Amino acid sequence: MATRRERLVIIGADATGMSAASQARRLRSPEELEIVAFERGDFASYSACGIPYWIGGAVPDRDQLIARTPEEHRARDIDLRMRTEVTALDVAGQRVRTRRLGTGTGDGQDWTDEGWTPYDKLVLATGARPVRPPLPGIDAEGVHGVQSLSDGQALLDTLHTLEPAGRSGDTNDTNGAGDGRPRHAVVIGAGYIGVEMSEALIQRGFRVTVLDQAEQPMSTLDADMGELVRDAMCDLGIEVVTEAAVTEIRADDRGRARAVLAGGTEYPADVVVLGIGVRPETTLARDAELPLGDAGGLLTDLAMRVRGHRNIWAGGDCVEVLDLVSGRPRHIALGTHANKHGQVIGANVGGGYATFPGVVGTAVSKVCDLEIARTGLLEEQAEHAGLRYVSTVIESTNRAGYYPDATTMRVKMLAEVRTGRLLGVQIVGREGAGKRVDIAAVALTAGMTVEEMTALDLGYAPPFSPVWDPVLVAARKAARAVRERGG
Amino acid sequence: MATRRERLVIIGADATGMSAASQARRLRSPEELEIVAFERGDFASYSACGIPYWIGGAVPDRDQLIARTPEEHRARDIDLRMRTEVTALDVAGQRVRTRRLGTGTGDGQDWTDEGWTPYDKLVLATGARPVRPPLPGIDAEGVHGVQSLSDGQALLDTLHTLEPAGRSGDTNDTNGAGDGRPRHAVVIGAGYIGVEMSEALIQRGFRVTVLDQAEQPMSTLDADMGELVRDAMCDLGIEVVTEAAVTEIRADDRGRARAVLAGGTEYPADVVVLGIGVRPETTLARDAELPLGDAGGLLTDLAMRVRGHRNIWAGGDCVEVLDLVSGRPRHIALGTHANKHGQVIGANVGGGYATFPGVVGTAVSKVCDLEIARTGLLEEQAEHAGLRYVSTVIESTNRAGYYPDATTMRVKMLAEVRTGRLLGVQIVGREGAGKRVDIAAVALTAGMTVEEMTALDLGYAPPFSPVWDPVLVAARKAARAVRERGG
Repeated sequence: MATRRERLVIIGADATGMSAASQARRLRSPEELEIVAFERGDFASYSACGIPYWIGGAVPDRDQLIARTPEEHRARDIDLRMRTEVTALDVAGQRVRTRRLGTGTGDGQDWTDEGWTPYDKLVLATGARPVRPPLPGIDAEGVHGVQSLSDGQALLDTLHTLEPAGRSGDTNDTNGAGDGRPRHAVVIGAGYIGVEMSEALIQRGFRVTVLDQAEQPMSTLDADMGELVRDAMCDLGIEVVTEAAVTEIRADDRGRARAVLAGGTEYPADVVVLGIGVRPETTLARDAELPLGDAGGLLTDLAMRVRGHRNIWAGGDCVEVLDLVSGRPRHIALGTHANKHGQVIGANVGGGYATFPGVVGTAVSKVCDLEIARTGLLEEQAEHAGLRYVSTVIESTNRAGYYPDATTMRVKMLAEVRTGRLLGVQIVGREGAGKRVDIAAVALTAGMTVEEMTALDLGYAPPFSPVWDPVLVAARKAARAVRERGG
Repeated sequence: MATRRERLVIIGADATGMSAASQARRLRSPEELEIVAFERGDFASYSACGIPYWIGGAVPDRDQLIARTPEEHRARDIDLRMRTEVTALDVAGQRVRTRRLGTGTGDGQDWTDEGWTPYDKLVLATGARPVRPPLPGIDAEGVHGVQSLSDGQALLDTLHTLEPAGRSGDTNDTNGAGDGRPRHAVVIGAGYIGVEMSEALIQRGFRVTVLDQAEQPMSTLDADMGELVRDAMCDLGIEVVTEAAVTEIRADDRGRARAVLAGGTEYPADVVVLGIGVRPETTLARDAELPLGDAGGLLTDLAMRVRGHRNIWAGGDCVEVLDLVSGRPRHIALGTHANKHGQVIGANVGGGYATFPGVVGTAVSKVCDLEIARTGLLEEQAEHAGLRYVSTVIESTNRAGYYPDATTMRVKMLAEVRTGRLLGVQIVGREGAGKRVDIAAVALTAGMTVEEMTALDLGYAPPFSPVWDPVLVAARKAARAVRERGG
């Protein structure tokens, strides 16, 4: 007896959406499950995290960032419809309304209404959208976000027209370049994206200024650790301006960005990059009255099913995830979570079983050869969560001190008073510093105390670590602080 | 009311002994606790793990391997007596007998009996001794162990007399070098020390042959992973001969090593390095009828106190430690454990409190740029422990595949059937491969299942990891194997 073929509709064809599609297809045949995925953009399954390295030139070809083409997905019986936007979600009627975008930008009337598509199961993987503050001049030519491959391509096109002095010998340039004048880039926001984009633009020969409202760049670290990032950025020749609120982007009479005004100072800008952060893209979900959290992300259960809805799943940059350290939901847009969500959703949609228990807030990045990592809670986050803590900082080296190229790293560690439970770690250093944060990420997941961490059996050999790994040195100091502080 | 000043006697002044002394001194003043440490050798507090890098030339100066000189210890009111050997331990009488070695080798009658020294508390930190099989010719000139700094110096002295062709332009050489003939080194044993010494000798310009009885080099890995190490050694130009039992070291008529015989083949050898492994140095303890385990190491409680003795502690290479994965005691000679033991002993001896819960068997090493790591149990060890397991191997990359210099690593993972508990991980790869084993080391300590590991929030950014870290890829495959295998 044949059961009715079900239809799975997926909105958004990047990491979460297409991982879910692939995983569901592994578990269910096309005869059992039809899979339709709608993507309003021009690309599916690409690595947004790789965009700064493509812009900077380390990754020469855009297509290297594409994990799987639409054709490859279709070859596996996934009905992927590119440039197709979902305009409405009818939860009661179990259907979505779509429109097909034309070859243009998708603005205006360049589209065709396709009507309603019914679904049995729905996956919301609508991602995030970059924050674009309502500044005067924000829509000037030469102001770019870097959220999607299309954004990256637009930025690269602008950069090519600005070919900085010293990078091109082209004397036929008609776009105002080739005049020997240095080209200026202003990056607004000094978080991960802003810092990575600053380095990329320096590598392309631009003079780069980064503007941020916070006390230090990289506000995903405490300010004392962020200061080390500032130093490294300055060493690269990046101008770092903090505690600077941008009030205006000024354009020339042809509508092109020419300067950014912040804190009363004008910073010249041939190009402006927005690295202010992202927000969950949940317009459809909000209109459909699906449950959203404080950060505007969808709220799900542990199986990534939207709360209160038995046949709707959501994952990736459009959801909030449980922070296992603070016990609160948080919005963290990160490709590695998005992929995990997709796997979990695909397993559950396909009739298997999987859960996503939550995150501990791990992130790693680099500026030039400076590696920057954090996991768990910052001081302010610990306070907000109602936790009383001790905070300690140590310096140690990535290798045995006598081994060639041993370099210094700084490790900050937070532990709860009384229990001694690890709450967070931040690391800034050179080679081998960043991924050491994984030690703390696992310890946080396991709920270890810093005292327990002092006995961890970590890999030791002179080329890899001092006899006490920096994380152990930090744990010892934190454990001592817990004992001395008492309750 | 003054209490009687206690005396702490420490036998052996390397990592464990002097860490214990330093820690105890921090907690107890010289008025409360007298600390006397006896060391029969010429050096205290040095990094034996660094010897191969000193021999190879990466560490130019021997003294860089010395963490603290005897004078520095004495300045902190630790009565450190060098070249003083403890010859007997009288547990009932709470005293040790010592003799002072002369300026010579310490063999024969070149010493002075110093009589008995009473103790209130005793620390045994006698370390390990290299295995010297009773082969014909083992005592020939040019046969060297590399356990101590003195061993290393003796080897270096030999190497200098053999200055290989192409390394020296010295035409006045009177030791048989400078004749254009390549110099041969044979390393017996292809474990960590043997592999590291092979690389060091290649770096010094020798032709190097490594002989081992096992199927593959690095028998601290399973054979399928050891094969990758063999390939890397061969790429360096090292001749690797396995399943070869050494039967004789042949000397010339001046008593100098000239060849090693193994499996019926003669391998020319101007110098022979023993890298066969070490055994706990517990002669004193055995004579005093202290409790020893199957591997010949002292048995202690969790506070590192010798079982059944309230005022004797032991740690470092002369003890057995609890393997937290198999539940059995094991002998693991490793500087990082020795230092931890010293800290724990010093805290307890000084009136504080600390324990050493055990190890999970983590080790990391490298050959040229190939990084080699393991933690937990090998297949054979799991079998011996009575564990039924699944074993999986994956290949992935250290960075995002599109990021420059992404290189392959292989990760092997063992998990218990039914429970899915992680049992062991082995990793072989290039930059960034080795220390990834720490993720598994923490997971083993926490008793995680491979299913739980699939959700770990590990640091992700394209320069550091693919979107699925190789350890996550391995955990996913192992989790699938656990599910499919059933009980």
